Amino acid sequence: MNAEIIAVGSELLTPHRIDTNSLFLTDQLNSLGVEVVSKCVVGDDRDRLAEAVHRAVARSQIVILTGGLGPTEDDVTRDAVALALDRKLIFHAEISEQLEQRFAQMKRKMAEVNKRQALIIQGAAILPNDRGTAPGQWIDEADVSILLLPGPPHELQAMFTRQCLPRLERRVPRQVIRTLQLRVAGMPESDLDQLISPVYKKYDNPVTKILANAREIQVHVRARCSTEAEAVTLLAEVGGPIELLLGDRIYSRNGDTLESVVGGMLRKQAAMLAVAESCTGGMLSERITSVPGSSDYFLGGLVTYSPRLKAERLGVPEETLAKAGAVSRETAEAMATGERRRTGAHYGVSITGVAGPGSGGESAPVGTVYIGVADAAGCQVNHRQFLGDRARVRMFATTMALDLLRRKCMLVAG
Amino acid sequence: MNAEIIAVGSELLTPHRIDTNSLFLTDQLNSLGVEVVSKCVVGDDRDRLAEAVHRAVARSQIVILTGGLGPTEDDVTRDAVALALDRKLIFHAEISEQLEQRFAQMKRKMAEVNKRQALIIQGAAILPNDRGTAPGQWIDEADVSILLLPGPPHELQAMFTRQCLPRLERRVPRQVIRTLQLRVAGMPESDLDQLISPVYKKYDNPVTKILANAREIQVHVRARCSTEAEAVTLLAEVGGPIELLLGDRIYSRNGDTLESVVGGMLRKQAAMLAVAESCTGGMLSERITSVPGSSDYFLGGLVTYSPRLKAERLGVPEETLAKAGAVSRETAEAMATGERRRTGAHYGVSITGVAGPGSGGESAPVGTVYIGVADAAGCQVNHRQFLGDRARVRMFATTMALDLLRRKCMLVAG
Repeated sequence: MNAEIIAVGSELLTPHRIDTNSLFLTDQLNSLGVEVVSKCVVGDDRDRLAEAVHRAVARSQIVILTGGLGPTEDDVTRDAVALALDRKLIFHAEISEQLEQRFAQMKRKMAEVNKRQALIIQGAAILPNDRGTAPGQWIDEADVSILLLPGPPHELQAMFTRQCLPRLERRVPRQVIRTLQLRVAGMPESDLDQLISPVYKKYDNPVTKILANAREIQVHVRARCSTEAEAVTLLAEVGGPIELLLGDRIYSRNGDTLESVVGGMLRKQAAMLAVAESCTGGMLSERITSVPGSSDYFLGGLVTYSPRLKAERLGVPEETLAKAGAVSRETAEAMATGERRRTGAHYGVSITGVAGPGSGGESAPVGTVYIGVADAAGCQVNHRQFLGDRARVRMFATTMALDLLRRKCMLVAG
Repeated sequence: MNAEIIAVGSELLTPHRIDTNSLFLTDQLNSLGVEVVSKCVVGDDRDRLAEAVHRAVARSQIVILTGGLGPTEDDVTRDAVALALDRKLIFHAEISEQLEQRFAQMKRKMAEVNKRQALIIQGAAILPNDRGTAPGQWIDEADVSILLLPGPPHELQAMFTRQCLPRLERRVPRQVIRTLQLRVAGMPESDLDQLISPVYKKYDNPVTKILANAREIQVHVRARCSTEAEAVTLLAEVGGPIELLLGDRIYSRNGDTLESVVGGMLRKQAAMLAVAESCTGGMLSERITSVPGSSDYFLGGLVTYSPRLKAERLGVPEETLAKAGAVSRETAEAMATGERRRTGAHYGVSITGVAGPGSGGESAPVGTVYIGVADAAGCQVNHRQFLGDRARVRMFATTMALDLLRRKCMLVAG
């Protein structure tokens, strides 16, 4: 069974935007054993879109359109699909009323154009949208299912997971795709590949992929079999040796992020954390608090961008700042221990470095980062030289800080 | 004159990879006045790719294929285009010899499969590749130019810029695309559309688009004309009234982000900023410091996740926390004024709220946010109720805080 994805929107045909919804949808479809055989981007052009839908319906069993369901004249998906399938558009008064209520809840009056969102293709099932105004639509035409989904990722993802997946599961013949997903820290991508490629290169199935960015490295091992048991066996055969080679560099096997893994460890130890950042400017705190419930283990953080605040708020000695410099092993240690002492946290973590592009008067080169992790036993400082632009250096540094804290927590868990 | 881009490769149909070459190519083509009307991703499937090429050639004047030129069986682009155009593939011995020399230079023996890269479509011009092994190919078929380019971005970009652009410039009739790009804050997308659509709806050219996410709203007005002067006039005709209607909600006309605009205003005033965040957990600091050189105007920030730290580090009275609560107008005011006083900054900005999904024991509903902006004249607190998940509420809140600070700075500049 094959699927095609058509992303709608002229902005996706500019140099400034890219369709990423198809990555989510592909992942979901693959989990059902459905392959995506083509992806297309079409602008806000009704006739061109209708033509693309017409072709897709003729050759694939699942056709998913994303975007173009908004209230404006630009939003042509409803019209184009109606045209391609030769069906009428029907105004649903109850959807229009629900939209008006939604606006009323936000203490706003609904603009007249929003009524266009209550137009439903004849025979379509309506997919309610609890995160936005545009309802989705599901049409079965002979053997083909055509799905119209909203463009904003959080709306699309909720609608697909809750309403489309269960319907698709009933339609799709049994085939199993199982993926082992390892998340790894503390090692560059090329070293990792050199380490594990002798294992995975011998296999066409499962397919092994290494995906890396500044935030994290993932290893995906993907088996496609006719039964669950076969897939599990195949994954064990290839995944087992890979896991052994990577050892404790693996922090997650279930898609959990590094920040949530570290959070879970802190919660288990009932240990509180406080952080002090310089060059990462709040990114470490931001990543830690991106996890719901992080107030259980996170007291707070300091962004000491100016040297004066490092002295005043963390008690970094003026002498250390003057002699060793704001970007130094000594300052990182004083920041981590100072933050720990002043907040009464179990763990104090610090980052100081030069994110670039300018060196900001520091003697250290761009990409230099010192990370301190302090606990009752003392403070350990790690130094690293990262390559990349400002955003990448900051991301690398916060990932490394989280990983060092994870390793410290592992020792406790022992 | 229209173009289509076809990215070739089954890896681009997985959840893990995305075609980004098309962004580069679109930018280059737009600079010539050529619109990209469709983008497609096709897997390593000769017949399916041949069909896609056949269709593209029938409706566009420029068809660019990227990838699939490697040495392996998977690399089907050459075969597929030859099939679609009904032309032969011809082995070029001199290309094969150049490839062998290239391998010899790297002290490696060329594998036999690499000879496939010396297969050239009948009548094609050869585009040498000085950064990799696969040569590109350029075919003119009636009015259509078909370009076969290598997949690796650095190979593709060098080949396109040096060899394809000069050829295209000779083919393309002079045409100019100019874009007015407005960034807007302080107004929901649908209200904005209702405000400006009476202006832009009357025009097919320029095309006006509203692009919105939790971080920002952009309005793009894009004119396509045969002369620069015409394009400028047309943009003024449509953009002028739109700018008037949006007024000071526009913070940037050149693509600058809100954080860099605010930074520029602070630098101009020689005013220092400090922030205190609760529910946004460092995101406000992180956004401010994402701008290079932000240490010129940013002293630092506090993430006071625990109520105790709000009292200790900001001097929020225990009584305020107990009576009004951590998420309240009173606490937001005490945070902003406390942070300003304690750091000696000109401006103190605070955010306190409930990002969700849980309410964390707060009496306020999820999405409630209070933002304080303090200066020498006092503190102004704004309250807002945002809709969305944790990540969106945090992004909305930081965008609003930056915008409120911008408005405060505008009064000074006044």
